[in-house]
Amino acid sequence: MNQPLQAPHYDGDAAMAALLKSTGSGLDINKLRYLVAGVVSAPRGERPKDWMGLVATDRSPALELQLAALEAEMAAGRPAELAARGPDRADRLAALRKELDRQKLDGFLVPRADEFQGEYVPPRAERLAWLTGFTGSAGLALVLAARAAVFIDGRYILQVRDEVDGALYDYRHITDAPPEAWLVQHLPEGGRLGYDPWLHTADGLSAIREAVERRGGRLVACDRNPVDAVWADQPAAPIAPVVAHPVQYAGREAAEKRAGVGAELEKAGLDAAVISQPASLAWLLNIRGADVPRTPLPLGFALAHRDGTVELFMEPLKLAPGIETHLGNGVSVSPPSEFGRALERLGSEHRKVLVDRSSGALWIVERLKSAGATPVPGEDPCALPKACKNETELSGMRNAHRRDGVAVTRFLAWLDAHVGKGEVDELAAVEKLAQFRRMGELFRDFSFDTISGAGPNGAIVHYRSSPRTNRKLQQGELFLLDSGAQYLDGTTDITRTVAIGTPTPEMRDRFTRVLKGHIALGAAKFPRGTSGSQLDALARRALWEVGLDYDHGTGHGVGSYLAVHEGPHRISKVPNRVALLPGMIVSNEPGYYKTGAYGIRVENLVAVRAEPAVEGSLPMLSFETLTLVPIDRRLVEPKIMSAEEIAWLDAYHQRVRESLTPLLDAPTATWLAQATQPAGA
Amino acid sequence: MNQPLQAPHYDGDAAMAALLKSTGSGLDINKLRYLVAGVVSAPRGERPKDWMGLVATDRSPALELQLAALEAEMAAGRPAELAARGPDRADRLAALRKELDRQKLDGFLVPRADEFQGEYVPPRAERLAWLTGFTGSAGLALVLAARAAVFIDGRYILQVRDEVDGALYDYRHITDAPPEAWLVQHLPEGGRLGYDPWLHTADGLSAIREAVERRGGRLVACDRNPVDAVWADQPAAPIAPVVAHPVQYAGREAAEKRAGVGAELEKAGLDAAVISQPASLAWLLNIRGADVPRTPLPLGFALAHRDGTVELFMEPLKLAPGIETHLGNGVSVSPPSEFGRALERLGSEHRKVLVDRSSGALWIVERLKSAGATPVPGEDPCALPKACKNETELSGMRNAHRRDGVAVTRFLAWLDAHVGKGEVDELAAVEKLAQFRRMGELFRDFSFDTISGAGPNGAIVHYRSSPRTNRKLQQGELFLLDSGAQYLDGTTDITRTVAIGTPTPEMRDRFTRVLKGHIALGAAKFPRGTSGSQLDALARRALWEVGLDYDHGTGHGVGSYLAVHEGPHRISKVPNRVALLPGMIVSNEPGYYKTGAYGIRVENLVAVRAEPAVEGSLPMLSFETLTLVPIDRRLVEPKIMSAEEIAWLDAYHQRVRESLTPLLDAPTATWLAQATQPAGA
Repeated sequence: MNQPLQAPHYDGDAAMAALLKSTGSGLDINKLRYLVAGVVSAPRGERPKDWMGLVATDRSPALELQLAALEAEMAAGRPAELAARGPDRADRLAALRKELDRQKLDGFLVPRADEFQGEYVPPRAERLAWLTGFTGSAGLALVLAARAAVFIDGRYILQVRDEVDGALYDYRHITDAPPEAWLVQHLPEGGRLGYDPWLHTADGLSAIREAVERRGGRLVACDRNPVDAVWADQPAAPIAPVVAHPVQYAGREAAEKRAGVGAELEKAGLDAAVISQPASLAWLLNIRGADVPRTPLPLGFALAHRDGTVELFMEPLKLAPGIETHLGNGVSVSPPSEFGRALERLGSEHRKVLVDRSSGALWIVERLKSAGATPVPGEDPCALPKACKNETELSGMRNAHRRDGVAVTRFLAWLDAHVGKGEVDELAAVEKLAQFRRMGELFRDFSFDTISGAGPNGAIVHYRSSPRTNRKLQQGELFLLDSGAQYLDGTTDITRTVAIGTPTPEMRDRFTRVLKGHIALGAAKFPRGTSGSQLDALARRALWEVGLDYDHGTGHGVGSYLAVHEGPHRISKVPNRVALLPGMIVSNEPGYYKTGAYGIRVENLVAVRAEPAVEGSLPMLSFETLTLVPIDRRLVEPKIMSAEEIAWLDAYHQRVRESLTPLLDAPTATWLAQATQPAGA
Repeated sequence: MNQPLQAPHYDGDAAMAALLKSTGSGLDINKLRYLVAGVVSAPRGERPKDWMGLVATDRSPALELQLAALEAEMAAGRPAELAARGPDRADRLAALRKELDRQKLDGFLVPRADEFQGEYVPPRAERLAWLTGFTGSAGLALVLAARAAVFIDGRYILQVRDEVDGALYDYRHITDAPPEAWLVQHLPEGGRLGYDPWLHTADGLSAIREAVERRGGRLVACDRNPVDAVWADQPAAPIAPVVAHPVQYAGREAAEKRAGVGAELEKAGLDAAVISQPASLAWLLNIRGADVPRTPLPLGFALAHRDGTVELFMEPLKLAPGIETHLGNGVSVSPPSEFGRALERLGSEHRKVLVDRSSGALWIVERLKSAGATPVPGEDPCALPKACKNETELSGMRNAHRRDGVAVTRFLAWLDAHVGKGEVDELAAVEKLAQFRRMGELFRDFSFDTISGAGPNGAIVHYRSSPRTNRKLQQGELFLLDSGAQYLDGTTDITRTVAIGTPTPEMRDRFTRVLKGHIALGAAKFPRGTSGSQLDALARRALWEVGLDYDHGTGHGVGSYLAVHEGPHRISKVPNRVALLPGMIVSNEPGYYKTGAYGIRVENLVAVRAEPAVEGSLPMLSFETLTLVPIDRRLVEPKIMSAEEIAWLDAYHQRVRESLTPLLDAPTATWLAQATQPAGA
């Protein structure tokens, strides 16, 4: 865990004003306080002083000390840990119900979403967690006058019971018992169900709309979110520096990307597109931010026009010096408050405007419509080109994975040497791994909070260790470690499952079946046009054979120094029509979880690549494995593997050994040589 | 091919009127002529005299002769073969364009659909074929003032070139180059695109609607179909007897089914459901008809109410004597012309009415809306219970497949004995197989037109032999035979590929890969909740390994003495969210097609069954193979099969041999014993 800055005494606004003035900062004390309110709402991350660059480029030690002091003071005023379960959850629910009454609503939808539909949401958008205590990365609460429910997916079945008070909320599996069914049962006939139009897409609401209409009721867009109305100490919007992402990592100039998106709009007969995914905006303009945890996203909206120009709507205070030059002539920057007016201008010109189905808020769609524009639901025009990494990005990903492989391998060697005494626990493992990663060149952050699950904790799919749940790594148990990093040249995500002491035959059987699934997918060849959904079963088949499965997707897209979860492709049993294309990165992560006993997952990132053309053959694709870390051979049971599967594992281990050994210290190299011996040897 | 009835001389209406009167028929001569106009628009099928039961129960030989004479006379007046390509296609297109002009339309959609969205459409709905010449089972024409296109899927890439004049129509692959893209390119800015609201569903039009709006144009519902307006000799609606389907085959009383559907509507908060799929109506009421080829469907609509009662809208002339008694008190019958009024009544009562997404015509949806009802798009409430066969139906399917296996096996033995002389051709093979099938107990019809493709004709996926394309079965070639039958107790569908003489190593390799896919799917175990889409890749993987694939689905649902293609489940790369459930029948039919050379397909029907429960295991499903016919071992290359695959094939052959031998003549039994020896033996 990174250390908080030392917090010296804050000498007061007058002294700070003087310091600002003498440094030549453009900020006065009021603007600075506004800035710092945003800074404490942004994650601290691994580079907690970066934000000071927004105050002044040349800073005296005295200024830095006082900025840190002000930050500490304002951070101390932040509300307590969101996840904390306590008696005030009942009060919050009661307050919300009173507010609903005031707004003449019979109910309200509280999604775990912000106006960007992102996976990470800033503290001010953590309405679901604030209200219910649930901190998972996906979920929905439905609050009616007499009854409420929280809907979660398979990853959070255990967690929701831990975090949410069952006396206040029903627990529901979002696909097995969807909100629609619950509404049809519990919404009063003719009921008015409120929603915040900034937090939902048109498609996202359609099933709920149908259910509400079936009860003769209607959905009501709220001007003011009723949760915000009763959330007295709601945090500010985050502010973190927005910086250039150099072309040496991005591989393509932003101007070229803008021209490409403009040409696509032209081809589709569209005038403009709303860019409502911050990752798309980051990709399109070759910029990165730090507004949400573990992902270098700058929150904001953009309008991409068919002529290749872009209007960016973003808090001006967060633009690092020099960014406007980097953005160039084709990009205008305005504060977010101007966004609505820009949509109205498109309306007055009767423009056809693409709105991304998966992230475009209903507020945007309705604003366009009422202003006279034609919103055209479609796919974010950046999504596909962003997903298909160029040669520079692929080469960066390979380099990043080599460095990441060194860090994880050093950790695994360290673990083998130290775990025997029974002193290593989950949190210590997280910290040790973090230390190894921080040594890597171009390291910027972790790509998500490490999942470090010993024994039964490994069976909690999206487990996060805390001092309360922290567990020693014990003999005869399995240890599941899912982690990743953000490097300037690439994003990593890897899971390894390690045997502590001697595993049982059942553990080895299950692990080997998971591995067989991993290999079947990793070694697959498939025709162009194939989607990830079509391949999903390959990863599950060896488990299905013995009546087992796992309740999560098999693979997610990964960004290039961007989100560790990105679309539009995925490998999942959930239908997805997006064909895999060369350059796409995707995880390959089958697993098996025995509740109360252990969890197993084997995850590598892979890149889609074209197979060499063969006369008489269709154009085929396959996967290049990017991740370079040994798989625990002590858990492999060669007896249930085919010769091809064993050959795949041995070849992978040989490649890991050859790639990493030159970069390792001698003891780790020795450990690696042993860890990568042929299976069955 | 069944022989047309001898056509004696028709003695005239006066003589017929006298005959009708003396027989005590309820029909006068005008009603009879109306009836026979419908009869000649219905398929002749295998029981061409059944319709006479609609005239009178006790018929003198003289009456039968005169009825046949009248039928022949009226049939002779029917328009010539629809598929014929000729100069009049250009005239028809010109006439349609003139009509569009009259209706102030810039274009018109001509789908291959009738008002039931069925696979088979009666002659009067064959607008696409009449206009363009294209006779495939799916397709769409888009006619604009200056340009027109026909959109087809992968099955019809070759056929469309054969049937449709490329000077009049562009050919387009419906998924690779969808109508939307073509419209965006060719529809004039602000253009009015007409459609017949009886022939499209709301969902079916949505992509086209979006494209039209993108061009600033709009979709216009036509009161009168412009094709009908210029189709002078458009056939009448079909009339064929609607008869009871006894509970000894159906397994469940119709009253019980109606109550069950009513309860589902109640549970979903709905008042009624429009039953717009004739197969659902047949299932729900335990009736069968003969309005379209090869499928015992009675065309009509029904309204199912939450109290379990049903209103049936169907031509009264086609109800066989006794049917109203069979339908019982809970079912009212009205002519189709009353359907609109019934929808209006639901409107005046402000009912919530389920309309099937996949078959409910926009006309129905709009009529409900404008009358004040709430149409709720959803799934046909009969679709799932119809798909999940009950024990009686499953047992009927097994029996039907045993009889069908006898017929196909006798044919294969006959073929082996006769093909050497080079005298057997595709059409002769079809007829010989038909003879064997007709001998089977409870045989009623074929379940589709047999695909009998020798050599390169086998590579045309939905090939139908004709005297023009008929080909001898020659040494060194493959013969692909896809056929099925309708028995009162079940529907069959089987494909076998047979080596004529010695196959090449490439043929054996390809065949074996197709077989490996067939086995991988047939032997799969999978958890409850798995959809067919998830399993599809298992059937393709062995082909993918060598860069090959097939451009069609892997499996379709099959009815119980109903449509050979039924939903809602399927096994396909096209995403489908319907989970496979015990009792569902589905085909397993991977293939491989080398254009200009040969076609390979291996198809069995399988039934989904629950695996025995095992402690610690998820509830799992697997497939029971229903089809019992040997797979040509001369095409099997055991060297590229796993031990498990060989064991599957041998066990299947053993089961075929043991099931069929007691039912076979001695020479066929001898042939079967040889054909089902272990692979590699």
